[in-house]
Amino acid sequence: MMNPTDRKLVEVCYTPGQYELYQEGYEIVVVIDVLRATSAITTALHYGVDKIIPVATVEEALEYKSRGFIAGAERDGQVVEGFDFGNSPYAYMDPAMKGKSVVLTTTNGTKAIQMAKDKELVVIGCLNNLEVLCDFLISQHKNTLILASGWKDKVNLEDTICGGAIADILLETRKFRSNEDSTVAAKFIYRSAREHLWSFLRSSSHRRRLIKLNIQRDVKYCLTLNTVPCIPILRNGALVKLETDAVSRHVQLNISSNHTS
Amino acid sequence: MMNPTDRKLVEVCYTPGQYELYQEGYEIVVVIDVLRATSAITTALHYGVDKIIPVATVEEALEYKSRGFIAGAERDGQVVEGFDFGNSPYAYMDPAMKGKSVVLTTTNGTKAIQMAKDKELVVIGCLNNLEVLCDFLISQHKNTLILASGWKDKVNLEDTICGGAIADILLETRKFRSNEDSTVAAKFIYRSAREHLWSFLRSSSHRRRLIKLNIQRDVKYCLTLNTVPCIPILRNGALVKLETDAVSRHVQLNISSNHTS
Repeated sequence: MMNPTDRKLVEVCYTPGQYELYQEGYEIVVVIDVLRATSAITTALHYGVDKIIPVATVEEALEYKSRGFIAGAERDGQVVEGFDFGNSPYAYMDPAMKGKSVVLTTTNGTKAIQMAKDKELVVIGCLNNLEVLCDFLISQHKNTLILASGWKDKVNLEDTICGGAIADILLETRKFRSNEDSTVAAKFIYRSAREHLWSFLRSSSHRRRLIKLNIQRDVKYCLTLNTVPCIPILRNGALVKLETDAVSRHVQLNISSNHTS
Repeated sequence: MMNPTDRKLVEVCYTPGQYELYQEGYEIVVVIDVLRATSAITTALHYGVDKIIPVATVEEALEYKSRGFIAGAERDGQVVEGFDFGNSPYAYMDPAMKGKSVVLTTTNGTKAIQMAKDKELVVIGCLNNLEVLCDFLISQHKNTLILASGWKDKVNLEDTICGGAIADILLETRKFRSNEDSTVAAKFIYRSAREHLWSFLRSSSHRRRLIKLNIQRDVKYCLTLNTVPCIPILRNGALVKLETDAVSRHVQLNISSNHTS
């Protein structure tokens, strides 16, 4: 077992608004927006999109679009007028996007990515890439902050659960430790929820919001664990697919499985 | 059963820093700082202190003290130099305080009280007055925001659990409803914790902080449910004991029980 003093920190920050209070001393920031930005980004890179350029505003996305980029924009769960897609993961499975650069702005997720961009390493997490992501974080063994995107700076349930899952898995290795109550609470929420994620999230405000918009299929996709063995990382302002041994191993293991099953 | 549209809101806000995002449309704010400000305030008024004047800064408390007031001040879990007591509930059982006005400033709790002071009704909650407080809130049946004091604007476990307990009890009546994920999450944390509060809170950062300061006795006191049938409310800038039927009934029921048992 590792000497407790050699353990690295893993903490969960619930909202971008609290990032300032948490950010010092972390080499890695994991940005989470389960419904749906980070699930969509992970899916996109897995399906062959070359890179995703996250931008904070619709204006920036429009500007890129006018220069010929493929661009998506979501606000309040809906595709913004003038754009062909938002943050539905299914939109990014389109073979026409293969090898392309895609610009994306979303209500919460891309803002959180922008906030973290000065860190040594920014990676994208969701329930779809949970296991492969945790393997990678464990192999890196650095002070790791999980930044949940929340909903307009309020706590949301699905990101807290996903953050709690990552923290739980890292802490179980005994190579990590945690000081923050937010992390302990997230871990307990994850443990309460994990056996029945779908029914647990019935109570989630954002899921209710999305159901109103008739995107149940997306929600189900985003709440399914370990279907997309891909880790997006931020490199020179764009999200690209990380190629690692951990990822390759998972790709081999899961090669014949269907992500929608 | 109540028509869903007649149900009032009950929500949990985890930190003073998030109060701005939550505060609109609530008639009642319940301020919580389980370790130890609101437990101490509730105890003080129950033991006969006439009123508690919460102030945000140590300077204000000193100014009151120089004018002859009894004044307490706590920062980072310790009594501030120049003051005789901080926020230990036991300090407020002193018969010498009976009938007196006491000025108090604490790291988190008094700040939260100040933020909420413009609301129709500000009440003080803790685990010690949980049941009597919930009875009162149910009888009022208004939109109720539970404002956890947290720790320096970060989430803390004991306040989240206490907030979750209040929300859970109010929601169970079906006279209240909740829209926020923070409330759902707090409720689930409370339910995970309630059977073994003490061991659950072993993981709490603030409890660890207090144990270092050798105030285990205080912690045990503050984590014991329904021992102090008293509801402090804010009236003209001071916290005073609310006299209600609900409180009287509880006083009668508990008259022979010992709060430290």
